[in-house]
Amino acid sequence: MSADDVHPGLARLSLNQRTIPRWSLPELVDHCGKTGVGAVGLWREPVTEYGLERTSKLVQDAGLRVSSLCRGGFFTSPEAAQWQAAIEDNLRALDEAAALGAECVVLVVGGMAPGSTDLIGARQRVHDALAVLAPAARERGVRLALEALHPIFCADRAVLSTLRQALQLAETVDAAATSAPGVPTVGVVVDAYHVWWDPDVWSAITAAGSRILSFQVCDWVLPLTEDVLLARGMMGDGYIDLRALRTAVDAAGYTGDIEVEIFNQALWDSDPEAVLDTVIERYSAHVL
Amino acid sequence: MSADDVHPGLARLSLNQRTIPRWSLPELVDHCGKTGVGAVGLWREPVTEYGLERTSKLVQDAGLRVSSLCRGGFFTSPEAAQWQAAIEDNLRALDEAAALGAECVVLVVGGMAPGSTDLIGARQRVHDALAVLAPAARERGVRLALEALHPIFCADRAVLSTLRQALQLAETVDAAATSAPGVPTVGVVVDAYHVWWDPDVWSAITAAGSRILSFQVCDWVLPLTEDVLLARGMMGDGYIDLRALRTAVDAAGYTGDIEVEIFNQALWDSDPEAVLDTVIERYSAHVL
Repeated sequence: MSADDVHPGLARLSLNQRTIPRWSLPELVDHCGKTGVGAVGLWREPVTEYGLERTSKLVQDAGLRVSSLCRGGFFTSPEAAQWQAAIEDNLRALDEAAALGAECVVLVVGGMAPGSTDLIGARQRVHDALAVLAPAARERGVRLALEALHPIFCADRAVLSTLRQALQLAETVDAAATSAPGVPTVGVVVDAYHVWWDPDVWSAITAAGSRILSFQVCDWVLPLTEDVLLARGMMGDGYIDLRALRTAVDAAGYTGDIEVEIFNQALWDSDPEAVLDTVIERYSAHVL
Repeated sequence: MSADDVHPGLARLSLNQRTIPRWSLPELVDHCGKTGVGAVGLWREPVTEYGLERTSKLVQDAGLRVSSLCRGGFFTSPEAAQWQAAIEDNLRALDEAAALGAECVVLVVGGMAPGSTDLIGARQRVHDALAVLAPAARERGVRLALEALHPIFCADRAVLSTLRQALQLAETVDAAATSAPGVPTVGVVVDAYHVWWDPDVWSAITAAGSRILSFQVCDWVLPLTEDVLLARGMMGDGYIDLRALRTAVDAAGYTGDIEVEIFNQALWDSDPEAVLDTVIERYSAHVL
């Protein structure tokens, strides 16, 4: 019996490893294999800790795809030395993504400097960084996925706040770097948590088409937690019409993985196998 | 010495009464008069408590404008009886605004029903309510100001999430109700706190033009408070380029009041006169 037979319909399901951070990489890969989950989303820190080549072999031997490598970005420092250090760190992320065969590197572009009101300048520095990184990504055969974050994070995490804005930036940077047509090097993440509220999201998804490099799901639940980074909920527990978003992303031509990324302390404290069971059940009920 | 001589440049400054909720209406009016603040933003509950006619006389005798009446809205209930009750409450708000000579009634349109994922349906019910209210507002000579709320509030407070979306809805509803050209009955609030992150806000402000019925200021400060309704900061304490927004609103043709609306427990616990002094100082330093 192949893994796909275990849970038919899970071939496109990807488990982001931060959804169940208690698992080591071998545990993650083992449980995905056992349940028929087709891909994993990896983070650089645990990959480095386990070893880049070792991780690559582990994942390939299990027949899993790496739907994304999280993450690069943080391009907004007004200090030249810090900005340059971010470029260098992102170049390392590209090398890691190439070694892992990851579908894309997710870029969280960074927020505003404390005390600054220069949102426009911060956005310009993101553009400038991507102009450097896009050619380097193309050389390595790696794709950059710009992640628009919910506007709640505009000041401190990401000055890219809408899918449309991310798409326009991707188009601008890719055009300047003369990609081959139809093979974008710079694209976008559609993360349901960040974009669900946006009246323009449907039109932006259609316009994004082949630039959709990653589709991530979880749910918007209330009340918000004190640390809003950990406010994400399990699919089906909140307000997002995940099936509508999945249908729109599919209609735009996306055939890639559907990655479950949930940062939530209560889930992190729960039994990992039970969490994966719930992920699979809710994915089938609310996303597929 | 006239009030305007006390603090030159404050003629357009409006103090929303919830910024200093400890003051009674006579105290609010007295302090605005003494300092040269030109207008007040009023809330229905304290106005009703003090008396509608009494409030109207108090404000007019002091030579103050009423820059806005807060608030109507909450049109998203899927229950017909609740939706109808909201319409009736909003009709009362229109009568109150007419009696006060308020520049507009601010509409917070309402969020999603608990457990619902039907954002599109909730937005449709807002449209349907406005189609009923716009003609009633026109009859009374009252203007409806649609307030887009920060997307953090999409699920529970307002399914209008961007200025562009509010503007398009205002245009749709007003066109259907055949307003006289140039005299919109339905327009928008530009609240800096809610729209500052939006890459489209500059273009939306320009497009809004004479439909800008209210301009409100405070600041986006971090960390967010546990109750995000109370997370607003004093101008100059956060990340918003308020002068850039004020300049854009002016360039779009807005000549109305600039209303300071800050919900913040620490300010509410402070000495009211000191708060007003700070409002005036920060308004001069960061908005004018």
